[in-house]
Amino acid sequence: MTDSLRCYRCRESSPRSAGARCACGEALWFDVDADDFDPGGHADRSGIGRYLDLLPVDDLRGLASAAGGTPLIRTDRLDDFAGCRTWVKDEGEHPTGSFKDRGSAVGVADALARGCSAVGTVSHGNMAMSVAAHAAAVDLDCAVLVPADIPSERLAIIDQYGPEILRIDGDYGRLYEESLRVGNDLGIEFLNSDVPLRVAGQKTTTLELVDAFRPSAPDAVVMPISSGGHASGAWKALRDLRDCGALPSTPKLCFVQAAACDPVATAFRNGSETVSPATGGETIAYSIANADPPSGTRALAAARATDGAVVSVDDDEIRDAKARLARDAGLCVETASATTLAGTRRLVAEGVLAPDDRVALVATGSGFKESTVTGGERATAVPLADLDATLAARFGYWGDES
Amino acid sequence: MTDSLRCYRCRESSPRSAGARCACGEALWFDVDADDFDPGGHADRSGIGRYLDLLPVDDLRGLASAAGGTPLIRTDRLDDFAGCRTWVKDEGEHPTGSFKDRGSAVGVADALARGCSAVGTVSHGNMAMSVAAHAAAVDLDCAVLVPADIPSERLAIIDQYGPEILRIDGDYGRLYEESLRVGNDLGIEFLNSDVPLRVAGQKTTTLELVDAFRPSAPDAVVMPISSGGHASGAWKALRDLRDCGALPSTPKLCFVQAAACDPVATAFRNGSETVSPATGGETIAYSIANADPPSGTRALAAARATDGAVVSVDDDEIRDAKARLARDAGLCVETASATTLAGTRRLVAEGVLAPDDRVALVATGSGFKESTVTGGERATAVPLADLDATLAARFGYWGDES
Ligand SMILES: [Zn+2]
Ligand SMILES: [Zn+2]
Repeated sequence: MTDSLRCYRCRESSPRSAGARCACGEALWFDVDADDFDPGGHADRSGIGRYLDLLPVDDLRGLASAAGGTPLIRTDRLDDFAGCRTWVKDEGEHPTGSFKDRGSAVGVADALARGCSAVGTVSHGNMAMSVAAHAAAVDLDCAVLVPADIPSERLAIIDQYGPEILRIDGDYGRLYEESLRVGNDLGIEFLNSDVPLRVAGQKTTTLELVDAFRPSAPDAVVMPISSGGHASGAWKALRDLRDCGALPSTPKLCFVQAAACDPVATAFRNGSETVSPATGGETIAYSIANADPPSGTRALAAARATDGAVVSVDDDEIRDAKARLARDAGLCVETASATTLAGTRRLVAEGVLAPDDRVALVATGSGFKESTVTGGERATAVPLADLDATLAARFGYWGDES
Repeated sequence: MTDSLRCYRCRESSPRSAGARCACGEALWFDVDADDFDPGGHADRSGIGRYLDLLPVDDLRGLASAAGGTPLIRTDRLDDFAGCRTWVKDEGEHPTGSFKDRGSAVGVADALARGCSAVGTVSHGNMAMSVAAHAAAVDLDCAVLVPADIPSERLAIIDQYGPEILRIDGDYGRLYEESLRVGNDLGIEFLNSDVPLRVAGQKTTTLELVDAFRPSAPDAVVMPISSGGHASGAWKALRDLRDCGALPSTPKLCFVQAAACDPVATAFRNGSETVSPATGGETIAYSIANADPPSGTRALAAARATDGAVVSVDDDEIRDAKARLARDAGLCVETASATTLAGTRRLVAEGVLAPDDRVALVATGSGFKESTVTGGERATAVPLADLDATLAARFGYWGDES
């Protein structure tokens, strides 16, 4: 573990006090001393604690110890639809139901180690819930900045953990950088979506994925992309493992956006070097509709450096993929997470992925927090006295035999 | 692994074909051949696969491999309220958000191994979601029998996995045994809440708990109780480990009910040998309001055999405990799961548990599937221009220093 930061683009090292951004404008991430890493060295620990040597913190206790360790599930019934061999990393199986707990665990552990008394975040969804929960578990004060029009059901989930919730009237997009500035002045550690601590925690998704496929590596990892923080973590994980000589081969990093708001996919298609803000439209995958992703350009570089791609899918494709994940894999994922299956299908159709590729889809969050599950119309009313006859008629393959 | 069943009370062995009940009326469970068990023998496997030697199935693939492996979280901020040292086993971190996935994984694996083409269950909650999901993942047909008055939001969560849902008009309580009889006739494997396969899967909660506390064992395990199937699994886990010489000491098994519907707690208080049906009232812990628990008498025996207890708590205590789990531990648990904290407090007050006891609370399900989270009233509206001043005022300990 080292405590210095580096820019992936300039390659220059910066001290911790440099904050989240390089002078060039790109986001920084933590250096790692590859000599420190002992693959399998913390097998006695659970979750992300197994990767402590690659993290900028020394201790993960309590709720932080419950981050990571999510299952990788072979989902063979999805293969035909996807067009390749599929596995799903079920990140919904976290204390607050999303991968955000990985970054919050590292961020809150750092805030504790440095003696901060408060953390904060700019989010109206998974990240807000996650930071609030991790702060609550260690008795740190927590400031959550939400937009004025946040839906009440999401506000209620955040509120249960007891943070200070501030509804901000004004340009919510400006808050990302504003909060880092104010937090620095006041000593509140803002764990926004692409800050170095969060990216460090979120690289463990990919560290676990690679470990689960050993002795080989998956051919591709497919993730939804919003701020680009998780995508950056995936890239950093591969770079760390490569530096340690522990990467069997480099999986293609593929990122998926909703077509209504797809600045990174647009830049990828256009061959641009940088991501420009989009004029974001409405999508059912609201949690990844980020019109100006702070780590978009870094994610774009990650996709190109690994022979991957960035694609977008429309709401009908997302809806269909979400239903298939439930009906053919038994997984209730967040709507935004369903972009991975729709995107994989598209990546195979475009020739980026091949039919015999082994592809890991990262389902970033649980669908149980969304009230978008509808249905139940198919339920059939049956008088108790007709139970035998009804079951025999509906499951008639036995009726035939008996 | 053996394939014979045994009655805990008569001690007689029965063949697999005997079904779920002994001639004496009590539920059967699977025998285990202690010589087969190698503690730590399947460290390469994930989740409940680590305990394959103690399970009546040989193979757990796909979604079944994602059952178990839930984190045990040290929750020191709850200690004062509980009155002892607390840990929470977060069973909400499962594909369908509850411990039911453990039993469904084993039941569906068995149905596949025996060539069944359909499974079923009688449930309007977690178990229905779980069986439907595990059946979907392996392309088994699935019959879910629900009461006519099931809330639509729960029906929708079940429905997404594509099972055949039958709303039964009539005495829902009679369905438990009726479905086992019809299922036996038609070859549909009904995975109801205390059938031997389910109890086998659900004993892994306690196997994992004991392993997490090694080299010692926890002083007590506190669980909500409904049918008594999970409680029976906890007892069977301790018995299996004892038979294998792998139980450091016997934790007290303590079970908690909602006061409005507490037949097992009533029998425990009265010193009865058997549990009589209650006239169940309404409670916010609806998912454990079982007026006639099929394994209630076995659970009662489990509590007595381990020096534990069965207590009940009222809705105000449950509501308070649920809020504390969120605010002081960062855990959003199902309302019924909050009975564990309320019950632990009561068990300490009654002298069953001591202040220095190490107590494992089993939070059986996620709160994210319930729409009972309310709040958000505390959110404060802040114009963006006032952000600095507002944060400085609210987190003033830094304001003082700067
Ligand atoms: Zn730079
Ligand atoms: Zn008997």
